[in-house]
Amino acid sequence: MDDVVVRMLESVPLKDPVLVEGLPGVGNVGKLAADYLRDQLEAKPLATFYSKFFPPQVYVSEAGLIRLVSNDLCYRKARRAGERDILILGGDYQGISPEGQYELTHRVLEVAHKHGVREVFTLAGFAQGHVVETPRVLGAATSAARVEAMKKLGVVFSRNDPGGGLIGASGLFLGLGRLFDMEGVCLMGETSGYFVDPRSAEAVLKVLAKALGIELDFTDLESKAKEIDRIAQKIHEAEAKAPDSPAQTREDLGYIG
Amino acid sequence: MDDVVVRMLESVPLKDPVLVEGLPGVGNVGKLAADYLRDQLEAKPLATFYSKFFPPQVYVSEAGLIRLVSNDLCYRKARRAGERDILILGGDYQGISPEGQYELTHRVLEVAHKHGVREVFTLAGFAQGHVVETPRVLGAATSAARVEAMKKLGVVFSRNDPGGGLIGASGLFLGLGRLFDMEGVCLMGETSGYFVDPRSAEAVLKVLAKALGIELDFTDLESKAKEIDRIAQKIHEAEAKAPDSPAQTREDLGYIG
Amino acid sequence: MDDVVVRMLESVPLKDPVLVEGLPGVGNVGKLAADYLRDQLEAKPLATFYSKFFPPQVYVSEAGLIRLVSNDLCYRKARRAGERDILILGGDYQGISPEGQYELTHRVLEVAHKHGVREVFTLAGFAQGHVVETPRVLGAATSAARVEAMKKLGVVFSRNDPGGGLIGASGLFLGLGRLFDMEGVCLMGETSGYFVDPRSAEAVLKVLAKALGIELDFTDLESKAKEIDRIAQKIHEAEAKAPDSPAQTREDLGYIG
Amino acid sequence: MDDVVVRMLESVPLKDPVLVEGLPGVGNVGKLAADYLRDQLEAKPLATFYSKFFPPQVYVSEAGLIRLVSNDLCYRKARRAGERDILILGGDYQGISPEGQYELTHRVLEVAHKHGVREVFTLAGFAQGHVVETPRVLGAATSAARVEAMKKLGVVFSRNDPGGGLIGASGLFLGLGRLFDMEGVCLMGETSGYFVDPRSAEAVLKVLAKALGIELDFTDLESKAKEIDRIAQKIHEAEAKAPDSPAQTREDLGYIG
Repeated sequence: MDDVVVRMLESVPLKDPVLVEGLPGVGNVGKLAADYLRDQLEAKPLATFYSKFFPPQVYVSEAGLIRLVSNDLCYRKARRAGERDILILGGDYQGISPEGQYELTHRVLEVAHKHGVREVFTLAGFAQGHVVETPRVLGAATSAARVEAMKKLGVVFSRNDPGGGLIGASGLFLGLGRLFDMEGVCLMGETSGYFVDPRSAEAVLKVLAKALGIELDFTDLESKAKEIDRIAQKIHEAEAKAPDSPAQTREDLGYIG
Repeated sequence: MDDVVVRMLESVPLKDPVLVEGLPGVGNVGKLAADYLRDQLEAKPLATFYSKFFPPQVYVSEAGLIRLVSNDLCYRKARRAGERDILILGGDYQGISPEGQYELTHRVLEVAHKHGVREVFTLAGFAQGHVVETPRVLGAATSAARVEAMKKLGVVFSRNDPGGGLIGASGLFLGLGRLFDMEGVCLMGETSGYFVDPRSAEAVLKVLAKALGIELDFTDLESKAKEIDRIAQKIHEAEAKAPDSPAQTREDLGYIG
Repeated sequence: MDDVVVRMLESVPLKDPVLVEGLPGVGNVGKLAADYLRDQLEAKPLATFYSKFFPPQVYVSEAGLIRLVSNDLCYRKARRAGERDILILGGDYQGISPEGQYELTHRVLEVAHKHGVREVFTLAGFAQGHVVETPRVLGAATSAARVEAMKKLGVVFSRNDPGGGLIGASGLFLGLGRLFDMEGVCLMGETSGYFVDPRSAEAVLKVLAKALGIELDFTDLESKAKEIDRIAQKIHEAEAKAPDSPAQTREDLGYIG
Repeated sequence: MDDVVVRMLESVPLKDPVLVEGLPGVGNVGKLAADYLRDQLEAKPLATFYSKFFPPQVYVSEAGLIRLVSNDLCYRKARRAGERDILILGGDYQGISPEGQYELTHRVLEVAHKHGVREVFTLAGFAQGHVVETPRVLGAATSAARVEAMKKLGVVFSRNDPGGGLIGASGLFLGLGRLFDMEGVCLMGETSGYFVDPRSAEAVLKVLAKALGIELDFTDLESKAKEIDRIAQKIHEAEAKAPDSPAQTREDLGYIG
């Protein structure tokens, strides 16, 4: 079996497309953002990536149907002047080993490269360890010009954050992307790190929308954020009553989103 | 050394065979069922799979003879109208790493594909965490039609179970099977998860027998179930007397079956 | 880099040679025996195996010279009627992962096969968990004829030992050896499992010497056994005085041999 | 993706160059020394090694620019009679698995071999477990002649240290180097093992400078050593006041250098 099995679902010519990556991670910010972007833009499936670097797992839908875990590349062609063709990478998992991270990222970049990608945006969460009321968006980039361009969109480039660098797909897509002569930016929404965080995903997407010249309706994401707020509030109240055993409830929360 | 070494033991033409998989796992339900099916149908060895994704281990028989751990594919040709040719995969281990799970499953599916397999039944246990008097059989499938067909045989498709999907060979044979254009069903017998569970294996096999139009004699499996009951009863009594140290006894029980 | 790098040190024709394997393991019995055999027979280096499946380690001699960890195959041609050509595999480590165990064993067997090996003796310790005054030699074999032949040499084939089979090189050389049409026997010297055990190695070698029709002088091995006895005695006395902290001394003992 | 991706940055003919390796490890002695040597000699980038055997990580500079973790080979041509061309290998990580250690070392040695390297110096720390006021330099080598030559430069070849051999890149470059017919020496600066240790790096570099006939200015390294001394002193005082919780401060110290 190939390390990564790529199933091309469609053959479509793209014009200078930008690649947007958002996979599960801190606060699930990247995945929430990428999935929401895909839904809002009505992006269509282009390729599916199966791999032995994912867990040996299938998901079962409510209807009882199985689906092998994967990463998925969707595309959305520009619809009006000022827009660009977009590729969106989402999925169930990042590679579950360092080797897997490299192989999967490299394979996706190969496919993106063949479709003409020269620019990458990666979306992620940045764990602050405390509740963040109004999440800022931190950035890292492959060139000084991009740092400046992102600063104009409100992205914060902090001297100390992220101190130890970025670990995982969002950093690697930029790092390995350089081997494909791609430039790019990582957008990291601040988040507590304890919950899935739609509000942080929204902050990230707002920057991305400006950068890509697209318009997004955030109604659904804001509903989801309020739902999380309600549950967090409940947990808060439960903890006030019984401060010793909030663990279970908190874990439940992890599955929402 | 090849990752997986396939030893073909016989060359036999099969007609639209169905593949039945049952490897060690929760309650050993899948393995118990597959081994019992093989014995009852007097299935014959077709291929042996050795692999570096198994432990570096040989078993020693009571006569002092060694045997390298393996997975084993047996076949049984249809004997009367209404029956189908059957391939049964059993063995000592599932692959001991995610990569191994994918590689082994893929390799077995290749061999099955060459023999014309288009349909797969995977057999497994579903851990409920408590004693199950009358195990139900839960299901997951690759198509809505199969879900409906299985419901008619009494299989339960629960909205919430299995919540996190299936991990291991029984899910993977269906998930990767799709890459070989195979359809299939996973049959999961409810079990406590604490013992090997012949009764759950029997429940699973009864559904399978109906689905395949074959008849099975369950006498031996029921004897084994009663043996486990006796031991469980003894443990229960021992625990009643000395509730603090049942661990050793319980572990002993794990080897029965 | 190849997974296993084989350095052939000599080209020598061998006549129906028998392969004897003894690598580090329980009580270091196998390694002690194989190294002693090599020294007694004045066997000469034939091939060195380096591998990424060993630790990334060099040993430093007392003179300050480094040596990369390896497995080593030596040979000794028959010197008189009744003797056979012998290949001896020893070394610093077994493969440090299941995959490594398979790859290394397979690679050594390939080299052995090219030199005409059809029979393998593997030497190992069998941990009893308590002090063994007069170690028996337990056996496992690839054929009933070999079981019978070994019984005549005093080897014990126990119905229950080893219960869970053999894990590691000594089992794998026989298990994978079958893929090369080799037959063989595993000789396991009983040992406590707490110390390196020259006395157990001697028991194993005495059986092997009879099986191969060679004569060995055990003086040096018996000296080593007595040295271990003295140290064990000291530990015993130290424990009698200060029963709570024997760990350090015992660990020291582990390096002797 | 190749296991190791080599980016050649320049094509330069070298004359009998010596390879100096210093990667992160005990007390960061090797990396401190190699980086300092590179800066002092104004060595220029020759090749970059990316690999799936490194963590999937990018570093972010204070300016917000990302850089994929790597090993880096620099060169410095001889500037006057008596000097030699030098290659220096430094980097962010050693391979993060035994397999990775072997593959990366082998790949670097291949590149070095193509550039004519026949001699290797590896730089490392040797953990003594206690504060070392005046670090000695311990040695290990590939030949008796080199042991003698190093002794004349003050290197200590101890009968017992390092007892268990060398684990990691510094040993492996010599061990695998033998497969490329390279000779070499490992220079290990004594260090406590608790801090990054510029003073130990200086001791190692002083030996190396003599061996290579080059002159180095140690001012900057001594400043760094004094900075560490000041921090160590602060920790000492803090521990004197609150002896129970020095862990955090000590960890902070680990990042200095």
